Amino acid sequence: MANSQLFDRVALIGLGLIGSSLARVIKSHGLASHICGCAKSEKTRARALELDLVDNVEEKPALCVKNADLVVLCTPIGSYAKLTEEIAPNLERGAILSDVGSVKHSVVRVVEPLMPPETHFVPAHPVAGTEHSGPDAGFASLFSGHWCIITPTARTNVKAIERVSTLWEQAGMQVDLMDAQHHDLVLAITSHLPHLIAYNIVGTASDLEHVTQSEVFKYSAGGFRDFTRIANSDPTMWRDIFLNNREAVLEMLGRFNEDLSSLQRAIRWEDADALEKLFQRTRKIRKGILDAGQA
Amino acid sequence: MANSQLFDRVALIGLGLIGSSLARVIKSHGLASHICGCAKSEKTRARALELDLVDNVEEKPALCVKNADLVVLCTPIGSYAKLTEEIAPNLERGAILSDVGSVKHSVVRVVEPLMPPETHFVPAHPVAGTEHSGPDAGFASLFSGHWCIITPTARTNVKAIERVSTLWEQAGMQVDLMDAQHHDLVLAITSHLPHLIAYNIVGTASDLEHVTQSEVFKYSAGGFRDFTRIANSDPTMWRDIFLNNREAVLEMLGRFNEDLSSLQRAIRWEDADALEKLFQRTRKIRKGILDAGQA
Repeated sequence: MANSQLFDRVALIGLGLIGSSLARVIKSHGLASHICGCAKSEKTRARALELDLVDNVEEKPALCVKNADLVVLCTPIGSYAKLTEEIAPNLERGAILSDVGSVKHSVVRVVEPLMPPETHFVPAHPVAGTEHSGPDAGFASLFSGHWCIITPTARTNVKAIERVSTLWEQAGMQVDLMDAQHHDLVLAITSHLPHLIAYNIVGTASDLEHVTQSEVFKYSAGGFRDFTRIANSDPTMWRDIFLNNREAVLEMLGRFNEDLSSLQRAIRWEDADALEKLFQRTRKIRKGILDAGQA
Repeated sequence: MANSQLFDRVALIGLGLIGSSLARVIKSHGLASHICGCAKSEKTRARALELDLVDNVEEKPALCVKNADLVVLCTPIGSYAKLTEEIAPNLERGAILSDVGSVKHSVVRVVEPLMPPETHFVPAHPVAGTEHSGPDAGFASLFSGHWCIITPTARTNVKAIERVSTLWEQAGMQVDLMDAQHHDLVLAITSHLPHLIAYNIVGTASDLEHVTQSEVFKYSAGGFRDFTRIANSDPTMWRDIFLNNREAVLEMLGRFNEDLSSLQRAIRWEDADALEKLFQRTRKIRKGILDAGQA
């Protein structure tokens, strides 16, 4: 292996925004000698070859993982169980299986029991993204400056964690280790609830009788357009996230609703102080995000 | 007056994001022979002169409007009543008073009765903005490509509407005329509710016991940071918007809450189809905004 090489053969199952961005990172840094890309759609496979993202493509995941020392699941998490069943017989001894899913506890519960002996599951979540999907949407700097969370289990091999950490560090990320359930709670507020709210308000706006859709489009510069951008994210991926992080999302949604009721009451009763106090307070959070380099 | 000049002397009451951006437009296009800028804060007045946004500054609005043929209120709408009372005695015969407020019905109700005879009130709302405030935040292209809504009343002079329309067209906007109450309903969904929701979720996130603020900052790239950007907007301005568009905001919030309850139920009962259907539907709205050139 060349000096910078971390893996011999990498199999990327799924070539959407994250999978194709990771392929670009691996290629541009020479982190593997060979990348096999797997996608259900023929169009995606053809496009991945055209863009030179991967060295070969396979329709069948089980064929793609052959001889790979790293396999990364980059598909919606609802597909993990079936995928892991399919690839398990072909996983090499010592191979690492990792993923990029936005929920970790249910993923560990589903994937780990299906792993053959002497293979290592490293559950990971690079916290970065855009609202775009597909192999053309990816880019090598997508992950740069953001955080990757790895949620090891009692069974996870330390050496395997290190190798996956190095991969994401090469992509420009800082790596944190965290308990899977805590990860799911943190992401419920920093990612899942914001998406749910965005989907919801865009749905509400599209159902109005006395405001036309054309009016919604024209005057969206006042704030609404930011929500439509978020609500443009991949529907299947997000369906799976909400179904797999149900408890944490419902918990955060409960808190959100309580707070919204109190805000609604402040507007109804013209409680100017309560409104201004909240609006002042939220500015500090923005400052914290700027200071953390995440804006 | 020079060829491009629309007004002789313009008085801008308020030199924040919108006022200072409008000043930049007027200066760069030579739309007036003189701009007087009014701001309560000495720092803002000094900065406006330093940036060469205006020709002179005044602390007192009543002094600033003397001899002006156009006066534009660019302060939070809660200040309009007092401001109009103060400037009314000094408004020139034939002068146009306009504004840039995000609510129009209550503004008309408050301002119009205070106007002296032979002066013209043209309620206007350039639908453009950023989350930043103050004279340094403004820029001449802020309005470009967006819409300005003018909400004439039965008393509004047609010639005055035309002159204010031309001003905003020079700023790169397209102008729509609309009934004030309809404006308030449209903006309630395209701007006011999105801001309310953003303020609310950022508040919820800052109150959690088992997720630290540092975690919220670090992992905000997943969607949350977009909300904090919106929730960084000027607190006084937004307090006034919610207090002055109470009915329309509560109406839209009621619909939002109904939809959110149904979405919450879909998550609780794992109704995958309902979730995916909504997430597919919201993508179309994004497409409409892209097609309308507002993204």
